[in-house]
Amino acid sequence: MPDDDRLNRWERRTGAALTVLGALFLAAYAVRVLRPGLSSTGHTVIAVIEYVTWGALAVDLAVRLRLTSDRRRFLRTHVFDLVVLALPMIRPLRVLRVLSLLIVVHRRVTRASRLRLSVYVGGTTALIIFVASLAVLDAERRAPGSNIHTYLDALWWTMTTVSTVGYGDHFPVTVEGRFLAMGLMVGGIGLLGFVTGSLASWFIDQFSELQESEEETREDVADLVAEVRALRAEIASLRAERAA
Amino acid sequence: MPDDDRLNRWERRTGAALTVLGALFLAAYAVRVLRPGLSSTGHTVIAVIEYVTWGALAVDLAVRLRLTSDRRRFLRTHVFDLVVLALPMIRPLRVLRVLSLLIVVHRRVTRASRLRLSVYVGGTTALIIFVASLAVLDAERRAPGSNIHTYLDALWWTMTTVSTVGYGDHFPVTVEGRFLAMGLMVGGIGLLGFVTGSLASWFIDQFSELQESEEETREDVADLVAEVRALRAEIASLRAERAA
Amino acid sequence: MPDDDRLNRWERRTGAALTVLGALFLAAYAVRVLRPGLSSTGHTVIAVIEYVTWGALAVDLAVRLRLTSDRRRFLRTHVFDLVVLALPMIRPLRVLRVLSLLIVVHRRVTRASRLRLSVYVGGTTALIIFVASLAVLDAERRAPGSNIHTYLDALWWTMTTVSTVGYGDHFPVTVEGRFLAMGLMVGGIGLLGFVTGSLASWFIDQFSELQESEEETREDVADLVAEVRALRAEIASLRAERAA
Amino acid sequence: MPDDDRLNRWERRTGAALTVLGALFLAAYAVRVLRPGLSSTGHTVIAVIEYVTWGALAVDLAVRLRLTSDRRRFLRTHVFDLVVLALPMIRPLRVLRVLSLLIVVHRRVTRASRLRLSVYVGGTTALIIFVASLAVLDAERRAPGSNIHTYLDALWWTMTTVSTVGYGDHFPVTVEGRFLAMGLMVGGIGLLGFVTGSLASWFIDQFSELQESEEETREDVADLVAEVRALRAEIASLRAERAA
Repeated sequence: MPDDDRLNRWERRTGAALTVLGALFLAAYAVRVLRPGLSSTGHTVIAVIEYVTWGALAVDLAVRLRLTSDRRRFLRTHVFDLVVLALPMIRPLRVLRVLSLLIVVHRRVTRASRLRLSVYVGGTTALIIFVASLAVLDAERRAPGSNIHTYLDALWWTMTTVSTVGYGDHFPVTVEGRFLAMGLMVGGIGLLGFVTGSLASWFIDQFSELQESEEETREDVADLVAEVRALRAEIASLRAERAA
Repeated sequence: MPDDDRLNRWERRTGAALTVLGALFLAAYAVRVLRPGLSSTGHTVIAVIEYVTWGALAVDLAVRLRLTSDRRRFLRTHVFDLVVLALPMIRPLRVLRVLSLLIVVHRRVTRASRLRLSVYVGGTTALIIFVASLAVLDAERRAPGSNIHTYLDALWWTMTTVSTVGYGDHFPVTVEGRFLAMGLMVGGIGLLGFVTGSLASWFIDQFSELQESEEETREDVADLVAEVRALRAEIASLRAERAA
Repeated sequence: MPDDDRLNRWERRTGAALTVLGALFLAAYAVRVLRPGLSSTGHTVIAVIEYVTWGALAVDLAVRLRLTSDRRRFLRTHVFDLVVLALPMIRPLRVLRVLSLLIVVHRRVTRASRLRLSVYVGGTTALIIFVASLAVLDAERRAPGSNIHTYLDALWWTMTTVSTVGYGDHFPVTVEGRFLAMGLMVGGIGLLGFVTGSLASWFIDQFSELQESEEETREDVADLVAEVRALRAEIASLRAERAA
Repeated sequence: MPDDDRLNRWERRTGAALTVLGALFLAAYAVRVLRPGLSSTGHTVIAVIEYVTWGALAVDLAVRLRLTSDRRRFLRTHVFDLVVLALPMIRPLRVLRVLSLLIVVHRRVTRASRLRLSVYVGGTTALIIFVASLAVLDAERRAPGSNIHTYLDALWWTMTTVSTVGYGDHFPVTVEGRFLAMGLMVGGIGLLGFVTGSLASWFIDQFSELQESEEETREDVADLVAEVRALRAEIASLRAERAA
């Protein structure tokens, strides 16, 4: 499959550029949430970063679709990416749009780089906590009856949710914030389940391999027993011949 | 056991029909909870679906009891089904009746179809969350002092409970809703315990098998050593004979 | 060690009687908590049951100390029992006294009977939830500012605590109730840790055994190789002799 | 490496003295938090203990740096210790300063002594709960709108947080207290992850070893089969010779 070699080369070569773009996009989002009273120049810069990121991801997806050898499979495994890139035109929900774009960037970037599992899990968790705090602050800050008004409130809420402590001194009250929180709960349990499941299936694979190897050893020993018995019969017949 | 072949055939053949009936029953319950101001025609349709489901389950249980080879064992392992089918006549608790009927349908349908474990656990969890939200809304909506009034409130409460976050911004106050919540807690911990326990017992079984196999290999090798020693003695006696 | 045979016989023979006494003691405690306005006759009956249980445990401990072969070790592993039996004279805390007596009865009774692990864990958890609800109700019911007034409140609080959901709609406010809750938290985490740890150490033991067995197999095979090589040298010398 | 022998000797010899100093430092902190209205003599004693501890740790770090064979590696793995010892001059946060000094003492002392894993985990958890309760009480007691005023409140809050129950009847409201709580959540999850991860990696190592050993056994058996086959050919040729 020479085509998939070209796909892998493309993904490796553009990985660094997309990482930078993803970090810029995240920074732009952080600025927009943490500095609500921004000048119009600031707003323009942020909008440009958002459109460039969106455009770069669309171009990247198109190139990768052209370079893959099995296009049907590629489309099937990248439905989420396609939906997210089509999303901004059909839905006005800012939090949802930003979060899904960040998920696409994250999946795309981690495909191109290899990290130790502990660094990856730790870094992703820290990133999720940082971004979720921004997103919930964005959704809740101006809602009537809300109790999340500063970034510290939002970070505090995210930490008590992710650790499942859940004091209830701060919690989202908007539809947007609540669905974000549900995503955080599902994601947390999902990440835990993924790590546990991967470990368990690794053990199951190793076990099957070990059992197969052990079975083959037993078959080899059985062959050996037959061989030695034949040898003994040979010698017995040799002796009988001599006696005759 | 030709009787159990017939039982399995019956369970497989009626599986699809019961799945459809279960989905209809669930939809009817959802409509009744989510649309309280329903026309009398709507109420009649829902009541018909409930009675048909109940009747179908009773007939199915009777047929399966007739087809099984070991009737005593069947009755022992299906006490819950019998109690649930007898329940509607003796208790007026709607939530309890609906939930137990759904549990019976679920157990009956999953017997007839085979799913991958991850799909099964994920699907069942989603179903439990959806149904528990309906049930707690049904129980709490009109209770004095209640704080669960919309389906979003109920879904939010179910998610914070299942993830054990438990903010305490929404919680059941009726006896019915509290027992439902306790069931959810026990069920959640039970499901986790079941998955962990199954995995652990799978490993224990595999280990015992591997150890037995390893022990048999060792016995085979010991036999082989004895065999080769006998062979050597044979040759030594052959040589002694020749020397004589 | 004939002395320990006599100890085991004593423990097995008195197990049933202590189970009945423990159940009676628990029932008496439940009645005292759930029926606050009891007649003086009722109070007398309860007090008699409490004193008989306490006396029986003291006699049982003395007999077991006399029957054991290693008295120093017995005293070291039964410090908790000794402290609990000395407790009622020096402290007036009813909840603490009742709970520790129940722990002693439970440990003593489970020594004498063998249960399947799942039944044991399930039964103990149910018992803990039942007794902790009684104890927290006993401690909180009449405290100023308390929010646990009925057995349903207490059961609901215990369930939300044990499942770590912790809504915060009900919680203990007295010193007694709070220490009870801390015990419940520590006990729950301890039970989980005990089950996980037992499983892990079981696997570690099995692994060491399997590895030792595998090593011995390899040594056996090495012996066998030496044996066959000797055999081959024998035949080679036999042939050289013949050729001479 | 004779230098590292001298490092280990130093660490073992000064371990007891540092344990005593650490306990004194902890006791001084406990007195300062639990007895706010202390005489000026008391304050002087506490300040002396704090400065002596700080000085002893600085001297100890300098000696160890001198005794180690690979200084670059020592500096890299002790960045935290260096930052903590430089901290008191640049930041006025008492809770942070005390906690980081206690972490340094704890790491230094446990390097010099060997404990059973269960004792270590249990003891560390108890210590964390005791110190975190002191620290949160120190941070929250006089804050406006705070709900943690006594040591029992603080202990109760720590327990509900560590067990992830989180009722929400008590929670920190100051920036200091909230960061302390986040550290507690991260630390708790981190400790759990560390224990689980260690166990899993132990199993993975053992598995690889067992599989290698099994593979070598199979190779040995295959060699043996070849050996026996050669032996059989030898005897066949012997017989052919005789027949000729």
